[in-house]
Amino acid sequence: MTESPDQEQVPAGSFEHSLLDSGLLSPVRAGTPAEAAVCDRAWLQAMLDAEAALARAQARLGTLPERAARIITGAARAERLDARALALASRETANPVVGLVQALTRAVAADDTEGTGAAEYVHRGSTSQDVLDTGAMLVARRTLAVVRADLARTAGALAGHAARHRDTLMAGRTLALHAVPTTFGLKAAGWRQLVLDAERRLAAVEESLPVSLGGAAGTLAGYLEYARLDGAEGTDDGTYADRLLAEFARETGLARPVLPWHALRTPLADLAAALAFTAGALGKIAVDVLSLTRTEVGEVTEPTAAGRGSSSAMPQKRNPVLATLLRSAALQVPVLAAGLTQCLTTEDERSAGAWHAEWQLLRECLRLTGGAAHTAVELAEGLTVRPERMRENLALTGAQVVSERIAAVLAPRIGKATAKQLLTQVSAEAGRTGRPLHEILTAAPELKGHFTGEELAALCDPADYTGAAGPLVDRALGRGPATTE
Amino acid sequence: MTESPDQEQVPAGSFEHSLLDSGLLSPVRAGTPAEAAVCDRAWLQAMLDAEAALARAQARLGTLPERAARIITGAARAERLDARALALASRETANPVVGLVQALTRAVAADDTEGTGAAEYVHRGSTSQDVLDTGAMLVARRTLAVVRADLARTAGALAGHAARHRDTLMAGRTLALHAVPTTFGLKAAGWRQLVLDAERRLAAVEESLPVSLGGAAGTLAGYLEYARLDGAEGTDDGTYADRLLAEFARETGLARPVLPWHALRTPLADLAAALAFTAGALGKIAVDVLSLTRTEVGEVTEPTAAGRGSSSAMPQKRNPVLATLLRSAALQVPVLAAGLTQCLTTEDERSAGAWHAEWQLLRECLRLTGGAAHTAVELAEGLTVRPERMRENLALTGAQVVSERIAAVLAPRIGKATAKQLLTQVSAEAGRTGRPLHEILTAAPELKGHFTGEELAALCDPADYTGAAGPLVDRALGRGPATTE
Amino acid sequence: MTESPDQEQVPAGSFEHSLLDSGLLSPVRAGTPAEAAVCDRAWLQAMLDAEAALARAQARLGTLPERAARIITGAARAERLDARALALASRETANPVVGLVQALTRAVAADDTEGTGAAEYVHRGSTSQDVLDTGAMLVARRTLAVVRADLARTAGALAGHAARHRDTLMAGRTLALHAVPTTFGLKAAGWRQLVLDAERRLAAVEESLPVSLGGAAGTLAGYLEYARLDGAEGTDDGTYADRLLAEFARETGLARPVLPWHALRTPLADLAAALAFTAGALGKIAVDVLSLTRTEVGEVTEPTAAGRGSSSAMPQKRNPVLATLLRSAALQVPVLAAGLTQCLTTEDERSAGAWHAEWQLLRECLRLTGGAAHTAVELAEGLTVRPERMRENLALTGAQVVSERIAAVLAPRIGKATAKQLLTQVSAEAGRTGRPLHEILTAAPELKGHFTGEELAALCDPADYTGAAGPLVDRALGRGPATTE
Amino acid sequence: MTESPDQEQVPAGSFEHSLLDSGLLSPVRAGTPAEAAVCDRAWLQAMLDAEAALARAQARLGTLPERAARIITGAARAERLDARALALASRETANPVVGLVQALTRAVAADDTEGTGAAEYVHRGSTSQDVLDTGAMLVARRTLAVVRADLARTAGALAGHAARHRDTLMAGRTLALHAVPTTFGLKAAGWRQLVLDAERRLAAVEESLPVSLGGAAGTLAGYLEYARLDGAEGTDDGTYADRLLAEFARETGLARPVLPWHALRTPLADLAAALAFTAGALGKIAVDVLSLTRTEVGEVTEPTAAGRGSSSAMPQKRNPVLATLLRSAALQVPVLAAGLTQCLTTEDERSAGAWHAEWQLLRECLRLTGGAAHTAVELAEGLTVRPERMRENLALTGAQVVSERIAAVLAPRIGKATAKQLLTQVSAEAGRTGRPLHEILTAAPELKGHFTGEELAALCDPADYTGAAGPLVDRALGRGPATTE
Repeated sequence: MTESPDQEQVPAGSFEHSLLDSGLLSPVRAGTPAEAAVCDRAWLQAMLDAEAALARAQARLGTLPERAARIITGAARAERLDARALALASRETANPVVGLVQALTRAVAADDTEGTGAAEYVHRGSTSQDVLDTGAMLVARRTLAVVRADLARTAGALAGHAARHRDTLMAGRTLALHAVPTTFGLKAAGWRQLVLDAERRLAAVEESLPVSLGGAAGTLAGYLEYARLDGAEGTDDGTYADRLLAEFARETGLARPVLPWHALRTPLADLAAALAFTAGALGKIAVDVLSLTRTEVGEVTEPTAAGRGSSSAMPQKRNPVLATLLRSAALQVPVLAAGLTQCLTTEDERSAGAWHAEWQLLRECLRLTGGAAHTAVELAEGLTVRPERMRENLALTGAQVVSERIAAVLAPRIGKATAKQLLTQVSAEAGRTGRPLHEILTAAPELKGHFTGEELAALCDPADYTGAAGPLVDRALGRGPATTE
Repeated sequence: MTESPDQEQVPAGSFEHSLLDSGLLSPVRAGTPAEAAVCDRAWLQAMLDAEAALARAQARLGTLPERAARIITGAARAERLDARALALASRETANPVVGLVQALTRAVAADDTEGTGAAEYVHRGSTSQDVLDTGAMLVARRTLAVVRADLARTAGALAGHAARHRDTLMAGRTLALHAVPTTFGLKAAGWRQLVLDAERRLAAVEESLPVSLGGAAGTLAGYLEYARLDGAEGTDDGTYADRLLAEFARETGLARPVLPWHALRTPLADLAAALAFTAGALGKIAVDVLSLTRTEVGEVTEPTAAGRGSSSAMPQKRNPVLATLLRSAALQVPVLAAGLTQCLTTEDERSAGAWHAEWQLLRECLRLTGGAAHTAVELAEGLTVRPERMRENLALTGAQVVSERIAAVLAPRIGKATAKQLLTQVSAEAGRTGRPLHEILTAAPELKGHFTGEELAALCDPADYTGAAGPLVDRALGRGPATTE
Repeated sequence: MTESPDQEQVPAGSFEHSLLDSGLLSPVRAGTPAEAAVCDRAWLQAMLDAEAALARAQARLGTLPERAARIITGAARAERLDARALALASRETANPVVGLVQALTRAVAADDTEGTGAAEYVHRGSTSQDVLDTGAMLVARRTLAVVRADLARTAGALAGHAARHRDTLMAGRTLALHAVPTTFGLKAAGWRQLVLDAERRLAAVEESLPVSLGGAAGTLAGYLEYARLDGAEGTDDGTYADRLLAEFARETGLARPVLPWHALRTPLADLAAALAFTAGALGKIAVDVLSLTRTEVGEVTEPTAAGRGSSSAMPQKRNPVLATLLRSAALQVPVLAAGLTQCLTTEDERSAGAWHAEWQLLRECLRLTGGAAHTAVELAEGLTVRPERMRENLALTGAQVVSERIAAVLAPRIGKATAKQLLTQVSAEAGRTGRPLHEILTAAPELKGHFTGEELAALCDPADYTGAAGPLVDRALGRGPATTE
Repeated sequence: MTESPDQEQVPAGSFEHSLLDSGLLSPVRAGTPAEAAVCDRAWLQAMLDAEAALARAQARLGTLPERAARIITGAARAERLDARALALASRETANPVVGLVQALTRAVAADDTEGTGAAEYVHRGSTSQDVLDTGAMLVARRTLAVVRADLARTAGALAGHAARHRDTLMAGRTLALHAVPTTFGLKAAGWRQLVLDAERRLAAVEESLPVSLGGAAGTLAGYLEYARLDGAEGTDDGTYADRLLAEFARETGLARPVLPWHALRTPLADLAAALAFTAGALGKIAVDVLSLTRTEVGEVTEPTAAGRGSSSAMPQKRNPVLATLLRSAALQVPVLAAGLTQCLTTEDERSAGAWHAEWQLLRECLRLTGGAAHTAVELAEGLTVRPERMRENLALTGAQVVSERIAAVLAPRIGKATAKQLLTQVSAEAGRTGRPLHEILTAAPELKGHFTGEELAALCDPADYTGAAGPLVDRALGRGPATTE
């Protein structure tokens, strides 16, 4: 017999040989644009962009040589940095910016072939948090743009389903049971509405993401001191600070905050809320698709692709993998977001720990939600709807699915109490015998002279009891009769 | 020796003798307006208000007698209901509305002394979720109004601190250590900014809270069927549905949703996010107050009141109870809110469980946050600030708190490397000997001829190194030199 | 038209008229034993029990008159306290114990008709946290006893299902689709296993719940000082402290901690973990019951009771309310428990806020979980299983549910690749035509001479492909062939 | 002026150039053993170990050629797999095992130079979840071993502090204020107790981690079918299943579960609870260290190392980076763990989404907690304690810190009420004038004849009021006078 290897040994040198985390355990985001937008390199680039933008902003105000700003901007390229080395170094300072500044300074010195002293101007007057937070906002904005585009495509595909299936009859289900009829169009319109809600919330957050400019403890004193030494005006009355903020915001494209926000974490909480909403909203679509996909229900099927959803052991299966991935994100993001929200409670001018807890939580929220949005496009665009199965399922309980209606119609004729009693009795008989409800009703002595057989048959037709489903779809899609809203 | 009582016995009949939950374990909200606004009676009243508003809306459209609407409105008073009996009955139906409708129907029948059959019109065409959700939105709106008023008062008090202490010097602290000087005005302005952020988020949510009108499965079929039987027009083309929604919204004062939202839980997620934000923002103020209250720091003290903060054992203590209560809410609301957010992932046309999980979570989020806001008013309005202790603490490390500045100033004169080396050396000496930094610097041979003793003393004055703190306060308070934003 | 009442008005004096929280929004626990075990009165009684036990313990050590201990024990009855008044007073001290001690002292003075000065001995040398924490542990222990009894009943009922349905065939479902056959017995045995896992975890925690005895800051100095003044021995060498701890533990029946745990919150984290596990485990049963209850599936139905599960509008519905309630708890407790766990990170000798955040979270975790356990008894004992529907559903896909097996059997005869190809093809044909798989296989030229029609029919019988389901049930129930474990 | 680069562009091909996630945003775990133990390669190796162990187990039972088991074991090496390619492929099947089995099959075929057909035996009768779950348990066990070793070292270092500082006086602090004296030894002993609690919980979980063996839907049918075809005995009565489980457990070193646990997620919930506890316990140490490190307090300092804790801008700072990192983990793990716990509520025989949500959450919990444990070793072993600062801080309030004691001593002599009144008055005077409390007391007419000046001075000595602190330390460290427990 072969021997078991020593399984207690942690693989030595595993880093050299294999990626620390390449998405193996998170298929919902593996290979998606959002994953790339938040990877280490993207994060490094965003922080370098912040450094370069700061230098250019200072140059615009005349407190840093234009040439230095140019060299710094040119040197600020993530591919010149070693992400892993910076990660390891960050343990000594609790953040990766100290190492990043050193590396950038070296790169600038190397590029400054004429020895103009440009390296002296890297990170001038600044602090780690300004760079990391501004970088985080850039990463968030770039990722949100990707996520929103995917949500827009998803909403478009769902609008198509809603329009095509405006009148496609299906069972409305509450507490796991058939309730009354509805339409698939109304369901799809509801999904779309959630996606639009998500998109709007992300858009509002994206627009508000601010630049971070506070210096060591939120007073901008370092920036002002260097400017003062360089003879700048307005370092005492706040005008230089205002202009620096304006230029930095312009260079990065980010918003201008009212105050430095090192310890006022509104932007993080806003991101957390909007991302949790988005993941949860997509999760709603997922659980509906899963519910409708069940073998016994079979009303929708996911788009097929080569190898998609296959099972190693069971040849017959086509697993609903896209909905599964969406749901896996919906189960993760809200709790991760709660972790971010709690970091609002952050002490002093910079927290020892609450700030540091945010970074990976934010990355994970962004890439899980972004991965889910990307997955949702494929699900929405390729979903197969099976109206005939919807019809068959609706017929499963005879016409019990319209018993609400029958009770309403019978009551004025034979009295509310009698109607209810009769309906309970005939429902039970229909369930027991499988006979159509309208036949049993036609034979009921209580209804003699009140309704013809045809009237009762019409009353039992679920297609005639979809309420405002159709007009609601029109209203949601912004078409048909003008809404009064 | 006396005997131990049988402690394993659960108190029999405890409900009859004592309140189930009167706030004993939640002092942050005990007796506050928000607690009253979400108590059982308030919730019952809100659901009754929904029933009455629905009847009036139907009456406006001519599908329900005006007299019936009047009787229903008159009978819809929470004091006529037994909250506990409804709670117990709700176990059979998983929600309290079935019992509430029965009780209201009985009350209407009793008030309908002329026997006009008004009771037939209670809850006509409706469903439990329409009533509970509309009631929840009314409760939320009423509570948010209270919370926002308290936030506005808090912000006002903080604006006063910010203005009064615009130039009150204190240590800026990062990662638990003195970093560079700041002002208490800037800190208070930051707190206020968070409170304003919270208020704005709550206001936006409050305005968007929608009425719930969907009927059994979101198609409004029940409402339309009764209207059709009553000969109303527009039951097929959506116009009756539209008008009913408009009237219901008008009667309740709530917003009109695009679609019925039984399974599209955006309003709950929005509430969760805004409430978690608010509690977290107030928690930030709390941890700062606690940090500044520490015996060794002593820079602020909470407002005193008779008996406030006293300890049974330690006569000398004045515990910071208000900040303690704020923090207790900040530790609870974000996780409760995450629970609410997860309920976005809700299956079918009405979830079996996800809907039911929301109610108590929402109540708890509302009353904890509301209790915190009420507590914050008292804290902000009564906070005592002690500038002299701030000054003393700032002096604790000699002038090391301005070493960032000294390094910046020395570098151009004696070279960056020499400056840094010198500063590390003199800092250590100052720490060891307790001598003022500027004295040691004056004696340093490296600086001979570069700076006078007076210059060095000025350089070491923390009052001269507060950056843009003052102008930032002005900007945040919307005064002083016009900001460009 | 009737007028809308002023809905913005928070109900005045609502506390006087209606309960703050009587369970209206939390049907999963309304009226259950766990709810009574954690109500305000129960909590007050437990804290009073702690005070009385402390007095008796001190009396045993001779540092408090026996008569005083007797009077204190007699006076320590919750019905003499006003929970609401204590709740309101707690805002001044951030905890309800200061007020409770005052009320108890008054009660003792009143009972001390001979004027022996017993009131002087109330809370002697103690601190609020000792009383509140010991009370919380008593509440937890009493509630856990109730919860465990309900879990034991649930497990018993599930064992009955597992035994009765050891060989009841049903579809095993993975990722929403039929996978391979299983038995209902194995499913019920799995549910029972989770319930047993929960019961064991709760039992272990219950046994470890410790008494709290630390005095003002965890050194027991106050207790020792009074004992020293009373001439007790061993106040310097730790022996008196040890004996006091032992007697206090004996009087309360709680465990003896290694150290005072005011700021070492292991007991709370242990409770949180075990309660979240229990609620989650019961939630697993709930989602399975909901899945099997769906109209299209219909394999189980919840126990019926008068009025249970009825819908106001839809006479035909029997909603699965018990599973719905279980799931509502499972969605709440894990996040509440996370809030408790976070309070491990608690500063100093007593936290300003983290301690205070625990109380209501603990209460809510206990009563939701206890309510769920109580609900689970009813669900498990009354669940109706419908083997005929299980059989019908299993037949829905022809024999595709055993395609894993057919592939395994065919491979050695006709080659793995051919087998797989054939199976994919015939599965598709069966799906398209509805013909039984074994008929199509019998006609397949590839299998000519390899299998008879009878063999193929047997191969396609799901009853013959349940693997070790039966023996696994026996093993889990501890019967049948002895397991080797 | 240089131009701003197009910042909206997501970096193209970023994966090729830089690591997706190398720990850049998570310094608490960057480069720690736990990080290596959960990296993609480690996870791949563990899943391959599961495959190989399964083959060997089947070979032992005679249902798989020994030679095939040997070749499979030899081929099962993670360095032969491309983690990123598997991650990308996993989107099609929602898990990485399908791709891993294909890659392993190819590797076995390549190694099977004599063409014995070994590749046919890879993953025989198995299912993705058996492999992924068994792999996850192996990863968890290996990581827990590393974490526990670090906790043991931490506890050892803390025991040293507790012993050395058994009698080192310091202020006990409650609700941010000095309460009564305590000792640093007692504080360190408490920290150690939490670490031991964590270690015990992890050890219990580690021991219970089970192998996963269920086949497609938990019945082991696939395993049994292949064994039956191979003529094995006991495939009907459960004995083969039992033996396979035993051999698989033996080969992996994992425990034997009572039932297959594809949908019974006790092991994951247990891991979540123990890891959240550990992170939270270490967080308690962190917040205490941060509190004691504050500039005004200065009672401890973190171990220094070259570059450690330095600030780019402020030369004087030595940031408490280790405590900061610990706290960053404590803020993340409890919410991540809540996400894991919620996955208990998992439908059917395998969930569509709840299973998939577990993987990354588990990895993150393991590496954050493991990183924190590794960081804690360094913090505990290198912490500098400054008894002189503790003494100075204790003296800050005069002797108010022992006012609890003075009240207790005075009461029997001058009456409780008079004593309390006197103490409030002299405390105020001491606070106002800065005079030592015992001087003021000596001059108090109320005490004339009751106490000498020496007695009062002794009474005011905090060193004489540490209660049982010393003996408690002895007891916790298991030394000194035998405890009765």
